[in-house]
Amino acid sequence: MRELPESAAVRVLAFREGIPEEQTDTVAAEWPLTLYVNDEEFATLVCTPTHLKEMTVGFLASEGVIEKYEDIADLYFNLERGLAYVELVKKTAVHPALFSKRRISSCCGKSRQSFYFASDARTARPVSSSLTLTPEECRLLMDRLQELSALHRETGGVHNAALYRSGTKLCAFSDIGRHNALDKIHGHCLLHGVDPRDTILLFSGRISSEVVLKAAKIGSSLLLSKSAPTDLALRLAEELGITAVGFIRGNRLNVYTHVSRIAGSDYL
Amino acid sequence: MRELPESAAVRVLAFREGIPEEQTDTVAAEWPLTLYVNDEEFATLVCTPTHLKEMTVGFLASEGVIEKYEDIADLYFNLERGLAYVELVKKTAVHPALFSKRRISSCCGKSRQSFYFASDARTARPVSSSLTLTPEECRLLMDRLQELSALHRETGGVHNAALYRSGTKLCAFSDIGRHNALDKIHGHCLLHGVDPRDTILLFSGRISSEVVLKAAKIGSSLLLSKSAPTDLALRLAEELGITAVGFIRGNRLNVYTHVSRIAGSDYL
Repeated sequence: MRELPESAAVRVLAFREGIPEEQTDTVAAEWPLTLYVNDEEFATLVCTPTHLKEMTVGFLASEGVIEKYEDIADLYFNLERGLAYVELVKKTAVHPALFSKRRISSCCGKSRQSFYFASDARTARPVSSSLTLTPEECRLLMDRLQELSALHRETGGVHNAALYRSGTKLCAFSDIGRHNALDKIHGHCLLHGVDPRDTILLFSGRISSEVVLKAAKIGSSLLLSKSAPTDLALRLAEELGITAVGFIRGNRLNVYTHVSRIAGSDYL
Repeated sequence: MRELPESAAVRVLAFREGIPEEQTDTVAAEWPLTLYVNDEEFATLVCTPTHLKEMTVGFLASEGVIEKYEDIADLYFNLERGLAYVELVKKTAVHPALFSKRRISSCCGKSRQSFYFASDARTARPVSSSLTLTPEECRLLMDRLQELSALHRETGGVHNAALYRSGTKLCAFSDIGRHNALDKIHGHCLLHGVDPRDTILLFSGRISSEVVLKAAKIGSSLLLSKSAPTDLALRLAEELGITAVGFIRGNRLNVYTHVSRIAGSDYL
């Protein structure tokens, strides 16, 4: 099987001690693989595109679809379209309750694209904002995020997310699930009628495609993280008008997309 | 609404410089909430049980089920049973393709329990092993896991998992998705007929319930991580016969369950 790249080179505006420099950075590849079992769409796995056969077999065993490799009659991949076809020895082996319905619906077409779930294409709309931040403000906000979570300090086991407008905290939540912390912010905004324009979303975890999609759904144009982004997340951020800032640690940070919102970037 | 605890106290056997000491540790709570939308089961969110209303509203908006809070006619929780009931203003608002079928099937009953997905109850079986490891061996294995992943060093964005028997590496994988890295190990074992007995599973991420379930599905009785566990993960590890070792960092580590497999624990 042809190997897909597990990382990608991206352009980044790296700030060190407030000084911007254009660099090339390597980020992890993020790749959706949609599984068909006995000709029915089963699930979409968002993964690092290596060892796809191991992952598919392991996933099917974990989900209880197969018990051993021999339960699979045929398994083949269409890498261009990001599809895996599984034929089971028993054609009636899969209980319908095991099928995931989170699928690419026909409204998105079946071609490769950033939006691999139908609901995302409907709910994640491009955001715009004339907001700008300095690298120093990014760093101070990230420090505050870390201070906010007593639960994290106690257990070391949760993700933190917060929404700010200028220096004012609008809300902050912790959760063991990355997306839950962001959903809590989204819910808070809807419950309390918070206008998301010109807000800044802070997140303790990696910038994956899901995190960028949640930022767009919330309506926040500035996404700050102390961690790494993926290539798919950055393509989505570019498309959705989101400034993605990663690796905010000490006196350094990387701006990956829509760099003009970070003050100092115009010195280039 | 009654508040649920966001953390739990657990007994832990803490090794410092190889010396064991029984301590009480605080771990993050992990709690499954099953959502019903218009009387149909929609999805199960595994979360930190705080701000459930925000999370539910945000999740429904993110999934495209609602656009604004006013689209919800009623929302109430049954905390004892871990259920949320959502009634939408429009009874026909949810396209069936949005419903997740990963649900608790009737075979598991509908009561609160560790196994919140039907497939887990069928595929995660208790493991047993007379394997023992010293704290020093745990540390060395964790060092090797970190050395294994070039992708992690390059991108800072992936999880690593490896399977060992004694000092021998059976396989190792990286993935941006926690579960994918473990599914790749599971698939490798099935593809190559690896006997999982007396194997050691190393993982770079947190010990969540899903990670413990994957270990049981793979058939590995020793789970080593440099990160924190959750309370639900530890209940499952107890039940499934898995020794969960967390926070393996420098000369320290914590043994949470089935401690007799870590040499030195008999000195107590």
